[in-house]
Amino acid sequence: MLSTLESLKAVAGASTEDLCRRFSKVRSFSEHLAEPLSPEDMVIQSMPDASPTRWHLAHTTWFFETFVLKRAIPEYESPNPAFEYLFNSYYNQVGPQFPRPGRGLLSRPTVKEVFQYRRLVDERMLELLSSPAAADPGAADVPLEGVIEIGLEHEQQHQELILTDLKHMLSCNPLWPAYRARTNSVAGSVIDVRWVEYEESVRWIGHTGAGFCFDNEQPRHRVFVHAFQLADRPVTNGEFMAFIDDGAYTRPELWLSEGWETVRSQGWKAPLYWRRDNQNWSHFTLAGGQPIEPSEPVCHVSFYEADAFARWAGARLPTEAEWETAAESIPILGNFSESGLFHPSSAPAEPACRPDRMFGDVWEWTSSPYSAYPGYRPLAGALGEYNGKFMCNQFVLRGGSCATPEAHIRRSYRNFFPPWARWQYSGLRLAKDA
Amino acid sequence: MLSTLESLKAVAGASTEDLCRRFSKVRSFSEHLAEPLSPEDMVIQSMPDASPTRWHLAHTTWFFETFVLKRAIPEYESPNPAFEYLFNSYYNQVGPQFPRPGRGLLSRPTVKEVFQYRRLVDERMLELLSSPAAADPGAADVPLEGVIEIGLEHEQQHQELILTDLKHMLSCNPLWPAYRARTNSVAGSVIDVRWVEYEESVRWIGHTGAGFCFDNEQPRHRVFVHAFQLADRPVTNGEFMAFIDDGAYTRPELWLSEGWETVRSQGWKAPLYWRRDNQNWSHFTLAGGQPIEPSEPVCHVSFYEADAFARWAGARLPTEAEWETAAESIPILGNFSESGLFHPSSAPAEPACRPDRMFGDVWEWTSSPYSAYPGYRPLAGALGEYNGKFMCNQFVLRGGSCATPEAHIRRSYRNFFPPWARWQYSGLRLAKDA
Amino acid sequence: MLSTLESLKAVAGASTEDLCRRFSKVRSFSEHLAEPLSPEDMVIQSMPDASPTRWHLAHTTWFFETFVLKRAIPEYESPNPAFEYLFNSYYNQVGPQFPRPGRGLLSRPTVKEVFQYRRLVDERMLELLSSPAAADPGAADVPLEGVIEIGLEHEQQHQELILTDLKHMLSCNPLWPAYRARTNSVAGSVIDVRWVEYEESVRWIGHTGAGFCFDNEQPRHRVFVHAFQLADRPVTNGEFMAFIDDGAYTRPELWLSEGWETVRSQGWKAPLYWRRDNQNWSHFTLAGGQPIEPSEPVCHVSFYEADAFARWAGARLPTEAEWETAAESIPILGNFSESGLFHPSSAPAEPACRPDRMFGDVWEWTSSPYSAYPGYRPLAGALGEYNGKFMCNQFVLRGGSCATPEAHIRRSYRNFFPPWARWQYSGLRLAKDA
Amino acid sequence: MLSTLESLKAVAGASTEDLCRRFSKVRSFSEHLAEPLSPEDMVIQSMPDASPTRWHLAHTTWFFETFVLKRAIPEYESPNPAFEYLFNSYYNQVGPQFPRPGRGLLSRPTVKEVFQYRRLVDERMLELLSSPAAADPGAADVPLEGVIEIGLEHEQQHQELILTDLKHMLSCNPLWPAYRARTNSVAGSVIDVRWVEYEESVRWIGHTGAGFCFDNEQPRHRVFVHAFQLADRPVTNGEFMAFIDDGAYTRPELWLSEGWETVRSQGWKAPLYWRRDNQNWSHFTLAGGQPIEPSEPVCHVSFYEADAFARWAGARLPTEAEWETAAESIPILGNFSESGLFHPSSAPAEPACRPDRMFGDVWEWTSSPYSAYPGYRPLAGALGEYNGKFMCNQFVLRGGSCATPEAHIRRSYRNFFPPWARWQYSGLRLAKDA
Repeated sequence: MLSTLESLKAVAGASTEDLCRRFSKVRSFSEHLAEPLSPEDMVIQSMPDASPTRWHLAHTTWFFETFVLKRAIPEYESPNPAFEYLFNSYYNQVGPQFPRPGRGLLSRPTVKEVFQYRRLVDERMLELLSSPAAADPGAADVPLEGVIEIGLEHEQQHQELILTDLKHMLSCNPLWPAYRARTNSVAGSVIDVRWVEYEESVRWIGHTGAGFCFDNEQPRHRVFVHAFQLADRPVTNGEFMAFIDDGAYTRPELWLSEGWETVRSQGWKAPLYWRRDNQNWSHFTLAGGQPIEPSEPVCHVSFYEADAFARWAGARLPTEAEWETAAESIPILGNFSESGLFHPSSAPAEPACRPDRMFGDVWEWTSSPYSAYPGYRPLAGALGEYNGKFMCNQFVLRGGSCATPEAHIRRSYRNFFPPWARWQYSGLRLAKDA
Repeated sequence: MLSTLESLKAVAGASTEDLCRRFSKVRSFSEHLAEPLSPEDMVIQSMPDASPTRWHLAHTTWFFETFVLKRAIPEYESPNPAFEYLFNSYYNQVGPQFPRPGRGLLSRPTVKEVFQYRRLVDERMLELLSSPAAADPGAADVPLEGVIEIGLEHEQQHQELILTDLKHMLSCNPLWPAYRARTNSVAGSVIDVRWVEYEESVRWIGHTGAGFCFDNEQPRHRVFVHAFQLADRPVTNGEFMAFIDDGAYTRPELWLSEGWETVRSQGWKAPLYWRRDNQNWSHFTLAGGQPIEPSEPVCHVSFYEADAFARWAGARLPTEAEWETAAESIPILGNFSESGLFHPSSAPAEPACRPDRMFGDVWEWTSSPYSAYPGYRPLAGALGEYNGKFMCNQFVLRGGSCATPEAHIRRSYRNFFPPWARWQYSGLRLAKDA
Repeated sequence: MLSTLESLKAVAGASTEDLCRRFSKVRSFSEHLAEPLSPEDMVIQSMPDASPTRWHLAHTTWFFETFVLKRAIPEYESPNPAFEYLFNSYYNQVGPQFPRPGRGLLSRPTVKEVFQYRRLVDERMLELLSSPAAADPGAADVPLEGVIEIGLEHEQQHQELILTDLKHMLSCNPLWPAYRARTNSVAGSVIDVRWVEYEESVRWIGHTGAGFCFDNEQPRHRVFVHAFQLADRPVTNGEFMAFIDDGAYTRPELWLSEGWETVRSQGWKAPLYWRRDNQNWSHFTLAGGQPIEPSEPVCHVSFYEADAFARWAGARLPTEAEWETAAESIPILGNFSESGLFHPSSAPAEPACRPDRMFGDVWEWTSSPYSAYPGYRPLAGALGEYNGKFMCNQFVLRGGSCATPEAHIRRSYRNFFPPWARWQYSGLRLAKDA
Repeated sequence: MLSTLESLKAVAGASTEDLCRRFSKVRSFSEHLAEPLSPEDMVIQSMPDASPTRWHLAHTTWFFETFVLKRAIPEYESPNPAFEYLFNSYYNQVGPQFPRPGRGLLSRPTVKEVFQYRRLVDERMLELLSSPAAADPGAADVPLEGVIEIGLEHEQQHQELILTDLKHMLSCNPLWPAYRARTNSVAGSVIDVRWVEYEESVRWIGHTGAGFCFDNEQPRHRVFVHAFQLADRPVTNGEFMAFIDDGAYTRPELWLSEGWETVRSQGWKAPLYWRRDNQNWSHFTLAGGQPIEPSEPVCHVSFYEADAFARWAGARLPTEAEWETAAESIPILGNFSESGLFHPSSAPAEPACRPDRMFGDVWEWTSSPYSAYPGYRPLAGALGEYNGKFMCNQFVLRGGSCATPEAHIRRSYRNFFPPWARWQYSGLRLAKDA
């Protein structure tokens, strides 16, 4: 806990100007993502787990209003007191929440009004950030600058969800409309997997250094990691097609029990968004329907499918400690959302002597259930509901995806989703015992 | 059957000019209803039984495209072949249908594109209507003019649904936004019910005359109607409040068994859209939240509630034959959608010597399950799916409402909904054995 | 209402000895039906709509305890006060009920204890019936003798349910165990349907005469019946096979909309209990699995299936007024439960000049929704919950089945079930407009 | 894997006589548990997760028939070939399974027939065990003796389930019938928790030694365990009452997000089987309803409740590595099923210098999701479905309960249930960071 607070305070060392610039940059990227969209695109909710774009734009604004403006400016008044209820996601300590599955029932405030709300909150935020006299009323465990930093990281998470939720919504339309036209995938060549070896050792895991991290990445602690091998690249579409052709979705012995039940009850026959016509595979992408490029990393698979593939391949998923061990010395480069591609690429990013494409392209499922690190302490107050209360029945994913902002990712970053979730850009990389 | 066709052919007697004018008038009224709406308002589906405004606008257009243009103009091409699937409601003989509960998943075609679709189809329709040489290819059981007439009546039905579905959607928003501001209800005085008496007799029931009617209003046939009494006005909000205060929703002995199960499973405590704060009743209307005016006809009650109220009041609902008997000599006047009020009114429309407000304001639940008349024949082909296949587990309502176009209603008109449905402007009028 | 009470009082004219004998006979027939069963067979509930045999045996006993013994003998004490709650089916005016879907959760009281309960209540009942001094405390609308008569009719209804619920339960067991071995069906010859004609007329419908009837058979009243034709025999298995072979369960145009939804959601492909192996049809019967005999009346079809068959056959179902008109002069003879066959027979019971097998074999679905007759009044008090509160979303069946006690049936008898129900011995007979 | 096989082979070192005696002893204990039950008690299934006693008795017999007799005796014939389908629990590699939620639909084979089935299989098993010439046909990965040992351990697991499933079934009966009368709980005194401290260290975890273990307890491996403290006794009923009185079930901040959703959707207000009348707590036990004794370990709590209690108490649940570390030197003594108490006891079993009652009384929830140990290999063939396929969305419990056979438990024993499960004898013990 102490280290989280320390790192947050360190952020405060940044100059006012830097902070204003960063604030504006993050906030405007959200709106940039909404540019190609009509109002119709922004209000529809296609499943309870996804939210309309309009809601993401309002909720991220609500976050700054609730945790910063209302705390720092006692006389602050919201443009609409109902927003506290409408745009609270899950913070019980803030108050009751409009039910998540109903986010698509709201046509008002309109998209235009939500943009006005953003404008208003941004102005007040920039005033606050620019005011040298802005004294933190204090007393709270997290200094104001830390909360602002959390708010920006929070908005970056929702930028990824804007894309993945939108992709799901558009995919429900039989017209398979494109979010943004782009050139097709480039065919790449696939080289056989090479296995990188790691010695058994007690390793330090978790966030280190002065920068920001979420509370779930701390405290840094020791883990005994047995010797293991890690594949030098993610599993590809072509490999997954071979898995399907070998009866993947018809062979219970390859699946976890819950995975097999899900396959049957949901009628799964391929990754999400895949469709087969006369032996040709195509899939829905943010550029519309496209033929599937075999050399690209496979994507939109659940933990169940990742686990079954690994079993079929005679391998397994890595633990998150193994993944973090391997990532230790690898630079954070890759195909992130800033590229505007919004699709995994088959271009290798790294020379082959170490694992390639650990960052960007696709989130990589690990075999690790999402749990607290030894000595974990959530933040105090409502912000403590950010991570800790979800440590149950979810699995950790690592490395970021083509929909993640590059500035958002860290080696110690722990993403988490339930094992059946497929609408994120989630893929896998194989591991083996040494 | 014969008589239905005859009456349809009679419509063809209308002049070309008349038909064009009528076509344009009906079509433009749909768009008039959409005027106060933002694109956001028009795409949301708030429950599986309701549809987005945008869908209604497209589906009514699809009707003319499918049943008229494609039949009369062999070379006709739809602006988008997918519309046949997307906007087919339930006509199995036309082809498969995009699932009804998913109508709110579609952001495309956008509202603007749907209006373009309307434009295009309207143009082709008016060309067709104006062309003296437009020969009906024939062979079909229903002449082309008859199909056009059905299409216009069909569109009027959807005009009512646009309003009721929209009301439901807006009511789900805690902001209770108004569709269109209007002056508040006018307080009226309520006079005690007077009972109008009718002798026992064999009566003729069903449509008569040359004008249009749906197949379910025919054939005209004889029914033995026992002597009965009918209330001279609908039940009011004030009377329903007294029912609630007397424990309505807590007394199983007042309810049909299925009604009581519905009360419990749905947690019903009042009509739909009613809310009680500190003993004051308000309700959601298309003008936003409003205090409830006791003198207005009660509205948005299910058949279950209507039936329970009648039992509590020591009366019963009329049969549809009784209702039609009473309506025989009453002029079709009342508070219909053309008034723009979209809310039941407390102003009596008739001198008290006969039943008042039989038409407009609120649909009146009858005790009659929706069944085929003796000798009933549905239309041939896909249009035969219009009415007959719903003759099961629904109850008949009579008289039209404040959301019904006046030109659409007839004395023999049979509306029907499942007994749990409450989102229509549905009320009741009491009857008694003589 | 009056006439119901009158007829009940008339029953009281029977001698004490007659009443005791009748009481004992009806009660012992229930136990006779349970003889072939193990305790295991008697406690299982295979679906929420069905009840365990043990529950039927206890509930029918509870009926006499609650409505007769507790009323007539102030000092009467139940062997277990919890029975009032456990064995109340749906009488809200008696008190709360153990939830119906949970009737199969109860292993206690054991079967043996339930038989002891029957013994005890029977003894007290016979004492009461034999006591000349047994004064009815009066005041109630239904005299004690009338209540006893209702109790016996009620028990006969449950005798039918014992058989149909048991059949459903045993059918869930892949072993298809027999309730009672019997000789196989006898192959019969099927003669083409002959149509019996009836003139248009105002008819009297409803119970007449001095004997017992339920309140829903009254008051006797006039109905205008149009000219019609009625098939001289029920539809056979062979005819239904032809319907299936003609695509019955794959053609939406043959079905009511709700029927078609049920076909799809339930995956119906044949009547309940039918199974096809290599083109050979067999079905589960109370004698275990058997080849299907084409000449027997088809059975275990829902209203939806009966309605679709009639449409396919170019005919329709009769209304209940039509059925009763045709039954007027036909003696009540047929294959009832007293025969011990518990299966429809292909043997004609009548010479062909009038409709054959109107009684027994299979209940015949009519096209009539179950509604109140004009002037209907339910019994006062809890017994008024017997019939009236179910007058919604059910359809009337007429004539009794091979599981109905012969003494129980009347020409005016109205059975009713929801349109999807198939676990009764329900079949159909066709009608046509004249 | 190797070590599992080795330990299984070691079992084969036991004498034939020993094995026969052990076989008979384990098998007869199952039947001993069924003695107080009527046939009615043995066929009812009260929820999909629980099974009827009759099913447990048959399934454990099926296990020996399927995995031993059919393998060792080629000419073996089952008394009923349908049993392979009816009594297969979840072994996809054996064949299809009768659906689990339908186990309560089967009245046949009767209880008596199931006992005959047990008799027959036991005779064949004892013949096989006694035959010195009984050559293992070999080739399989697990030697026959190993499979028999697994079968016995498997039966012991089902002995616990017989009790817990029965308890759930009887509790559904408003009569709260007793399985077996016993003397009431003895009031004990509760001493404040003392915390036992453990140093940070790399620990060896997993099964060691020659005896039997399940594959999920292997391989033995190293884990870095941080310094921690463990409570010297389980949490008591009295402590849980204080938690409830402090608003436990109304305070979302104490719960995991999924836990809180479960509390709300299930309406949880106390542990399973607890009932409050006028401030007095009672609960259902296998001896019927009883007042709750505050000094006894709390029981029938879910992981969610255990986790929330720990958070409220300012502590946490131990990891399974911590639990196993603490259990290392503690003798396996306690209140197990052999005592016939079938209820947690408040009597301390150990002097206070080390954690007390680690074994028996109640299973203790750990914070560890149920995952594979590093290097884990499931058994080959159908028996490999025993453990591995459930490693998802479950949590580990340790130490056995009052319903566990003493001979069945080990220090390395890993029980696992989903976090919402409450019908096992599951409690908790607190831990803290050092």
